[in-house]
Amino acid sequence: MKGFGVFEKGKVGWMEKPDYVCGPNDVICRPIALAPCSSDVHSAMEMEGDYLKNRILGHESIGQVIEAGSNVKDFKIGDKVVIPCTTPTWQHPDIQDGTHQDAGGLFTAINFSSYEDGTFAEQIKVRSADMNLAHLPDGVTIEQACMAVDMMTTGFYGPELAEVKFGDTVVVFGIGPVGLMAVAGAKLRGAGRIIATGTRPDCIKIAKEYGATDILSYKDGDLIGQIMGLTGGVGVDACIVAGGGFEALNNAIAVARFGYGNIAMLDVVAGEASVTLNNMYIAGFLAHKTIRGGLCPGGRKRMERLLSVVKYGRVDPSLMITHRFNGLESIEPAFQLMVNKPKDLIKPIVFVD
Amino acid sequence: MKGFGVFEKGKVGWMEKPDYVCGPNDVICRPIALAPCSSDVHSAMEMEGDYLKNRILGHESIGQVIEAGSNVKDFKIGDKVVIPCTTPTWQHPDIQDGTHQDAGGLFTAINFSSYEDGTFAEQIKVRSADMNLAHLPDGVTIEQACMAVDMMTTGFYGPELAEVKFGDTVVVFGIGPVGLMAVAGAKLRGAGRIIATGTRPDCIKIAKEYGATDILSYKDGDLIGQIMGLTGGVGVDACIVAGGGFEALNNAIAVARFGYGNIAMLDVVAGEASVTLNNMYIAGFLAHKTIRGGLCPGGRKRMERLLSVVKYGRVDPSLMITHRFNGLESIEPAFQLMVNKPKDLIKPIVFVD
Amino acid sequence: MKGFGVFEKGKVGWMEKPDYVCGPNDVICRPIALAPCSSDVHSAMEMEGDYLKNRILGHESIGQVIEAGSNVKDFKIGDKVVIPCTTPTWQHPDIQDGTHQDAGGLFTAINFSSYEDGTFAEQIKVRSADMNLAHLPDGVTIEQACMAVDMMTTGFYGPELAEVKFGDTVVVFGIGPVGLMAVAGAKLRGAGRIIATGTRPDCIKIAKEYGATDILSYKDGDLIGQIMGLTGGVGVDACIVAGGGFEALNNAIAVARFGYGNIAMLDVVAGEASVTLNNMYIAGFLAHKTIRGGLCPGGRKRMERLLSVVKYGRVDPSLMITHRFNGLESIEPAFQLMVNKPKDLIKPIVFVD
Amino acid sequence: MKGFGVFEKGKVGWMEKPDYVCGPNDVICRPIALAPCSSDVHSAMEMEGDYLKNRILGHESIGQVIEAGSNVKDFKIGDKVVIPCTTPTWQHPDIQDGTHQDAGGLFTAINFSSYEDGTFAEQIKVRSADMNLAHLPDGVTIEQACMAVDMMTTGFYGPELAEVKFGDTVVVFGIGPVGLMAVAGAKLRGAGRIIATGTRPDCIKIAKEYGATDILSYKDGDLIGQIMGLTGGVGVDACIVAGGGFEALNNAIAVARFGYGNIAMLDVVAGEASVTLNNMYIAGFLAHKTIRGGLCPGGRKRMERLLSVVKYGRVDPSLMITHRFNGLESIEPAFQLMVNKPKDLIKPIVFVD
Repeated sequence: MKGFGVFEKGKVGWMEKPDYVCGPNDVICRPIALAPCSSDVHSAMEMEGDYLKNRILGHESIGQVIEAGSNVKDFKIGDKVVIPCTTPTWQHPDIQDGTHQDAGGLFTAINFSSYEDGTFAEQIKVRSADMNLAHLPDGVTIEQACMAVDMMTTGFYGPELAEVKFGDTVVVFGIGPVGLMAVAGAKLRGAGRIIATGTRPDCIKIAKEYGATDILSYKDGDLIGQIMGLTGGVGVDACIVAGGGFEALNNAIAVARFGYGNIAMLDVVAGEASVTLNNMYIAGFLAHKTIRGGLCPGGRKRMERLLSVVKYGRVDPSLMITHRFNGLESIEPAFQLMVNKPKDLIKPIVFVD
Repeated sequence: MKGFGVFEKGKVGWMEKPDYVCGPNDVICRPIALAPCSSDVHSAMEMEGDYLKNRILGHESIGQVIEAGSNVKDFKIGDKVVIPCTTPTWQHPDIQDGTHQDAGGLFTAINFSSYEDGTFAEQIKVRSADMNLAHLPDGVTIEQACMAVDMMTTGFYGPELAEVKFGDTVVVFGIGPVGLMAVAGAKLRGAGRIIATGTRPDCIKIAKEYGATDILSYKDGDLIGQIMGLTGGVGVDACIVAGGGFEALNNAIAVARFGYGNIAMLDVVAGEASVTLNNMYIAGFLAHKTIRGGLCPGGRKRMERLLSVVKYGRVDPSLMITHRFNGLESIEPAFQLMVNKPKDLIKPIVFVD
Repeated sequence: MKGFGVFEKGKVGWMEKPDYVCGPNDVICRPIALAPCSSDVHSAMEMEGDYLKNRILGHESIGQVIEAGSNVKDFKIGDKVVIPCTTPTWQHPDIQDGTHQDAGGLFTAINFSSYEDGTFAEQIKVRSADMNLAHLPDGVTIEQACMAVDMMTTGFYGPELAEVKFGDTVVVFGIGPVGLMAVAGAKLRGAGRIIATGTRPDCIKIAKEYGATDILSYKDGDLIGQIMGLTGGVGVDACIVAGGGFEALNNAIAVARFGYGNIAMLDVVAGEASVTLNNMYIAGFLAHKTIRGGLCPGGRKRMERLLSVVKYGRVDPSLMITHRFNGLESIEPAFQLMVNKPKDLIKPIVFVD
Repeated sequence: MKGFGVFEKGKVGWMEKPDYVCGPNDVICRPIALAPCSSDVHSAMEMEGDYLKNRILGHESIGQVIEAGSNVKDFKIGDKVVIPCTTPTWQHPDIQDGTHQDAGGLFTAINFSSYEDGTFAEQIKVRSADMNLAHLPDGVTIEQACMAVDMMTTGFYGPELAEVKFGDTVVVFGIGPVGLMAVAGAKLRGAGRIIATGTRPDCIKIAKEYGATDILSYKDGDLIGQIMGLTGGVGVDACIVAGGGFEALNNAIAVARFGYGNIAMLDVVAGEASVTLNNMYIAGFLAHKTIRGGLCPGGRKRMERLLSVVKYGRVDPSLMITHRFNGLESIEPAFQLMVNKPKDLIKPIVFVD
């Protein structure tokens, strides 16, 4: 089979791989829709490691089952399926502690483009199919579902980790697609005021549609000062860091309310990182602020629930799609778009048939 | 001052009382808007007790400060204020355990029409004003605010007690005003499918506007069977009992999912009550279901947060108002409306000026 | 192989079964120690159902691996293993919601003596071995470990479900072995006063060793009145029902503190059950009390944690063992002991070699 | 009245102040027992600020009521009372969000030696007495109670913030008195293995009595490496930072388990602080670790609960007392002891009568 991947750091292109052998708990899919993610660019252009040599990229996809393993109960050939970007085996005891993303080690749930090949290929193999896949429900479009498998589950994790409550004032740092979904998720956890930071006009427009009530730009001055100004010097109930790395994390720690503020860290950083915790904000006991991070949750139940949120009209994640392509070979220009990040880009999608 | 109250069980009317003396932490308000509640009918017509003799009724109100105690910091004469229906003193150590509704005993937070006179009067006295009152915010109407002080805080408590999560399937038993707010609150906690039970056409219409996706009626057969049918025999993630008493609680226990289902009890019952827990549903260890109840939360923070939810356009609780009256004296026909419960009634409101 | 089981309701004895075939995720053990449980009596003498025909009984055991499936990574022939009484497959998506006991239906985690044969046999088959088994740690005796697989995990679930906090006043209804472990668990969650109800002198002695501070007997009058008396009419922070069925549940609901009290239901009931919720205690909104139930948690992590609690000397569950037997054939008199319940019985154990 | 305090940074001694005037919610006590704390040294020797000019020091004390305000219901002249080191007014709406330590701003609950004079004086004024004070219970010694008002409430907050569960492996950084109480608290939340770091022999001895199972010293090499070694490279479930400032926080972040680890920050730091978050430990999304901090909880309920833990023999905090003094004037040498920190010092106490 043919796939689009990374040969070595910085060098991407099409590669030929043997067809998958379907294990008893696996399904093999053909792709129906694919979406490149900034993590794909990150993996191909910035990271190193043997697992990124001759590795097919991609982890956002909707597929159709072309083969199902002998143990698979709930999926059969022809089924249209929603494939979460994280696909843990669910067979490590650590999942018994309540999270599955890092069971047995950091990022073990990231299988695509990591332990195994990714989704930008003629075939996609999904391990532990009954535990990971969800059926594409009636009333949910391919576009919507494709935005749920990573962007929505990651963005919605923000208000969960930050424990957003009815009427909370929330700030979302960054309004790329994860930040936009964090805004939508905060609204759907009952937030009142939602302050978002960003500068790109298309993102700002969608952020407002998703529920942002105030948009701030670093160009108008120090973000901490602006947020403190908007909140009468009190700060906010919840912060979600969806971009900006540790600088944004520092800002979040600064503006989280004394005695209560919750901070969710949804961003990845590379290299040694330093958090300068300004004494004014956290000197004592972190000023009773809580910081939580977490990789996007996967699992069939998670997918089914997010798709239910979409199906019943609570949010439309496909509003984020700005660029549409057709044909598997279009994954190349779609990926290139993510590398170049033109101003009007939020998310591209590639329809394979 | 003049007020509308209960002389003795079943006998209501206007009564004359001395003007309030304003304590150091109190404010005295004149009423701007009042709303009768089915609890008022309950107090006047069904309950007994010395505290319900010659007692002014009413606990839903928006007011304007006409006098403020010497310790009151944040409210001054002329301020328009949102008055929560529960006004605890916040001076009992039990609040240190995290709830305030029953600090030191059952229902101690219910001051209006209970320990002291209610709001259906020329004057309203609010104790612990700085801790209980909220300013009427710009962008929130009197009608909206008046629906927040009891209906919204009670209804929104449902999805909180039932710990509704993203994509949960929720059932709300009863779509009177509390049930309608529970529907809206469930949507704003991220529920997917929301099944509501009820028969009155006006309520059904509003329930759908607030987010209900399926409406069931007992007239179409056993509700348990209908809900199990809709959910493929699995049951629901969360149940909110907003009417129907213990029969509805029994239904809720029956349809809550094995191993996970959460049940919120928002209804009051009178008399000895019997829950027949059918073995099929809970035989062992309640089948890992959780049952929580709780009186409507009050407090300034709660009010400010709910008003923020309204202000930022997340929900409009004034959609529930079906009948509007003018003048304090109209509290009498408005109350009578609650007694008679005509088919098209959801909530009445009385504007005092 | 030979096993002790139930032929049909009320008729127990030895039966011959084919040796197990070891699946890829299974291990087969020979028993090292076995303990009969009152649930075994319940299954054999009171319950009906095809799954209880010619079924080997037993679910409490310590074993030694004699065969390990091809996928099993962490256990090999000769390993001494702690076998939890519940052994879910961990392959149903419901476990992704955070509980595993009822994934996909009521009691699906109960495999022994239910879907498959139990542990009172020459061979014990454990499914999903890597997820369910724990190694017997150095410093933990066979007796201690054998008390952990059901009694300790069930009893300790009480203070977890009742969310016992530092200094809580707790009542444990029933001081059979589950209740005794609930007492020990409440102490190990930081409870202050622990009131336990029971009458058998040996149980009372052990309850005090495990941390009970007050022992009450129904023979001295109404338990509700006694508990209210001890607590100055306030009631308790947390209740654990470890015996007494719905009558005890009613008592628990009555004595749980207004506005705060948590109730854990650890008991099973048979037949239609009726909870008479006295108006005085719960009329409104359950008086802000919370009721949770749940079957004993299993899983390798749970076992490893409980064994760690034992290993580091926090509690010794083997204090509950009152009767010791040797030889597999002794499972018969040990079972008979559980049927007869002599006064001095808490838990019997059978050493197989 | 006479008190021992700080004239200006670095200059301590006895000062004369007017007798207190008792407000309606206050009580005035004479001291029965006092304990200097390293925070007193910190306030006197290292910090600056107008509130630390001519300010009486001290916040750990047991007293006897000599005057009670007109609103005070539960305390009268002659009562022996336990005075928490934090005494919030409970009159700021922020307490309605569930914490009271920083209501309305950072550290607002710290009244003694901050907004008002401290406890090292002939008189101690306690604001909001009914909400803050606890009666000294029968069966609790003065020594035990005096160790509860700051050391125990702070140390026990560690396992609460770190959400220690049954069988967790916990590491406590620092075994000064707060760390020792964190060890005891971790044991009383059900921890299995408890690793503590420290070097002073007397502290090590008490740490073991309180439940520490492994003691590590930085003198034996990198603590991260040692902890990872002990835990087979997995790390720990929960970390409590009870000393060592941000260096210890960094260590805690490093050894907290991927996907689960909880970190509690109980230490204060002065000056600009920098957390160097090593990529290996937290690169992505903080590796799903959670960091919480918090000032010691106060409040009457908290005190009553901790005293219940002591009364029922769950822990004896007086084991930490290494130096005993008599007479108010001895507060000076006791304070000096805290400045000099001799090797055999854990906690001094001064008995005033």
